[in-house]
Amino acid sequence: MDDIFSLEGGHVLTPEFDVRKADVLVDRAAGEVLAVGDDVAADETLDATGSLIMPGLVNAHTHVAMTLLRGYADDKPLETWLREDIWPVEAGLTPEDIRIGTELGLVEFIKNGITGFADAYFAVPEIASVTADSGLRANLSHSFITIGKDEANARADAQESLDIAREFDGAADGRITTALMPHSLTTAEDDYLADFVSQARADGIRIHYHANETRSEVDPIVEEHGVRPLEYAADHGMLTDEDFLAHCVHVDETEIDLLAETGASVIHCPASNMKLASGIAPIQQLLDAGVNVGIGTDGAASNNDLDLFDEMRDAAMIGKLAEGDARDVAAESVVRMATEGSAEAIGLPVGRVEAGGVADLAVIDFDAPHLTPVHDHVSHLAYAVRGSDVRHTICDGEVLMEDREVKTMDEAAVKGRAAEAAAALVERAE
Amino acid sequence: MDDIFSLEGGHVLTPEFDVRKADVLVDRAAGEVLAVGDDVAADETLDATGSLIMPGLVNAHTHVAMTLLRGYADDKPLETWLREDIWPVEAGLTPEDIRIGTELGLVEFIKNGITGFADAYFAVPEIASVTADSGLRANLSHSFITIGKDEANARADAQESLDIAREFDGAADGRITTALMPHSLTTAEDDYLADFVSQARADGIRIHYHANETRSEVDPIVEEHGVRPLEYAADHGMLTDEDFLAHCVHVDETEIDLLAETGASVIHCPASNMKLASGIAPIQQLLDAGVNVGIGTDGAASNNDLDLFDEMRDAAMIGKLAEGDARDVAAESVVRMATEGSAEAIGLPVGRVEAGGVADLAVIDFDAPHLTPVHDHVSHLAYAVRGSDVRHTICDGEVLMEDREVKTMDEAAVKGRAAEAAAALVERAE
Repeated sequence: MDDIFSLEGGHVLTPEFDVRKADVLVDRAAGEVLAVGDDVAADETLDATGSLIMPGLVNAHTHVAMTLLRGYADDKPLETWLREDIWPVEAGLTPEDIRIGTELGLVEFIKNGITGFADAYFAVPEIASVTADSGLRANLSHSFITIGKDEANARADAQESLDIAREFDGAADGRITTALMPHSLTTAEDDYLADFVSQARADGIRIHYHANETRSEVDPIVEEHGVRPLEYAADHGMLTDEDFLAHCVHVDETEIDLLAETGASVIHCPASNMKLASGIAPIQQLLDAGVNVGIGTDGAASNNDLDLFDEMRDAAMIGKLAEGDARDVAAESVVRMATEGSAEAIGLPVGRVEAGGVADLAVIDFDAPHLTPVHDHVSHLAYAVRGSDVRHTICDGEVLMEDREVKTMDEAAVKGRAAEAAAALVERAE
Repeated sequence: MDDIFSLEGGHVLTPEFDVRKADVLVDRAAGEVLAVGDDVAADETLDATGSLIMPGLVNAHTHVAMTLLRGYADDKPLETWLREDIWPVEAGLTPEDIRIGTELGLVEFIKNGITGFADAYFAVPEIASVTADSGLRANLSHSFITIGKDEANARADAQESLDIAREFDGAADGRITTALMPHSLTTAEDDYLADFVSQARADGIRIHYHANETRSEVDPIVEEHGVRPLEYAADHGMLTDEDFLAHCVHVDETEIDLLAETGASVIHCPASNMKLASGIAPIQQLLDAGVNVGIGTDGAASNNDLDLFDEMRDAAMIGKLAEGDARDVAAESVVRMATEGSAEAIGLPVGRVEAGGVADLAVIDFDAPHLTPVHDHVSHLAYAVRGSDVRHTICDGEVLMEDREVKTMDEAAVKGRAAEAAAALVERAE
């Protein structure tokens, strides 16, 4: 294949959110968009007729290997679901399971036009290896928990999170970056936060954590420390413009102001928040305050798919229920969240289709009954497009999927391995 | 083609909601399932390997021709949206537009595994004609409004609703049935309800209407008549086990009891209720009280697609937010709503895959990354399947779609006509 190729015959979603007819010239080796316009030409072309070329979507909070638990337990509240169903099965996960679950999730990402993601799990070397092979871009982290462990084990888990963040930063030709991942403010304790956050900060490592997902993540902090959780996080140096907080369902005005002042990002996970009955995050309030908001699927076990088009639609839909105002969390807001919002949050240099920009792109086929007529492309992205409408997925200039065919992974083999591993996993747990 | 064919190699969702490996034998001419089991055989087969054979989905409340307005105006509250955007454009709709919009909607239905629907709109002869050609099953109605009209016009509109219901009942070899459709309890006035509902009732015609969608549909009734809207409906003979009420977002306990006592059905439209910020219908409370609940997409302009898999997921998701309980509106509940619940509500003899039953079927391809692994088929139907996973759609024994190819309509031509008509419509309105 040539080093230069063009996407021809389609429309482009510009950084200004105009949609105009244009071709896109990509330098594969440099991973860069060379030009966007009418006079673009290359020997090698990828057809984009009837399609919209948009930034690749960024899934800013997920636990990708949890695909193996998709549909394993539903319709249960968070605490029960974790304790009775998820944690017992997760305890039996081997690094090989995590590799297989990650493969499945990354195939799903590519098929849904997702080109970047932020993951928090364990056995990160496996996840990094699959990510490198897949061609995707990611921020990876090892999630550590100290509560309920003796000091040696707690410290070892936190140390692993830090070690992983140091080791894999810049891997896969720079497509992999990392974060320190204290699981949450109630499951990673005071002393460990003080110690490890400051070490990570000194190395320029971002902090990624679950915050204020349920009331039971808020009340213990208020009771024990006399401050709101995000004040507590700020006191621990975990609330800067490098950090990203998943969920933030139960934040008050003080905390919203703190987020805006510090520049920390919120990752909205609407499907997970609904499915676990956690509540509705005040997204319009956050946007109005100037907080950067990204969007994530969370793990497949609480969603149950990894489709950011579902997630955008969910965000727009429940965003209107939060305050009972149909104007809230409008179409453009959710598309921005899933592209530049997520990218900024997790520190990826992507999210805009423009000359000189990184070539992480999704090409959406608009020639479908459910996308006819097209009064407004952006409306369709938010409310009607689904992952199956993605035609080509390109990351760092490489074509990861062409006309629905995944190029970097063997889809059939991945599905087969995942089905087997999931069955064996459940058998071991029961 | 032979009169008898079999669906082979798949699993079947039984009326008891077991999933078991079985083939299904269909008599095309009789429109009937002859057998479900292992020893089924026919000369002609339709492959169902890796797939689940389930009842065709039933979309129990829609305005199908509104596909032409898909994405035309979003992110606005119901009243503003209707007055500023939808009604001005609808005023310019010709019967030909309605034909074209209906064609588009029915192609979308077939592609999403929907085999039956209840529609409320105008130019019903066009809708009936397209429905007959499409092979689908429907309950059709002309929606009448009396408020703001002089008596002659008001009476003429109500009369048209009744005439249409009488004329088209039993059309298309019985696939079309009808309803009287007073638009709502606030837009169709007292005297007209008294007159036309009793006439319809005498002829055995069902009543279909919008009820308690927003607070502004509740308060005026309470103020003017001193009773809750559904008490008012019962007083007008509009609350029987033949009748179905769209929305019921704002119903109180008295009204829930009334629904349970009378056997009237509620049609839940979760996407529309979210998008227009109408609120969350108390679905788990309705189910617990024994009310029959169906599910509908409403029109494409407030959704913005016609995919009941989206709608099932939405129902399960926001059902958990209503009372903050993740156990509510579980996977099986929403799949029942979209099949037998909807069918019972609108009076279609469908919704179960069983020998001797009507052959309205959807065959779902489970061989996809986002549906791997399969711990639980029903969980996937509720939370992970999307319309694009439907492989074959069968109605009344006829194969309307085979391997994603629509057989009874020309998909490309329909899309082309719809795009043109929608552009012309907006041009006329602006």
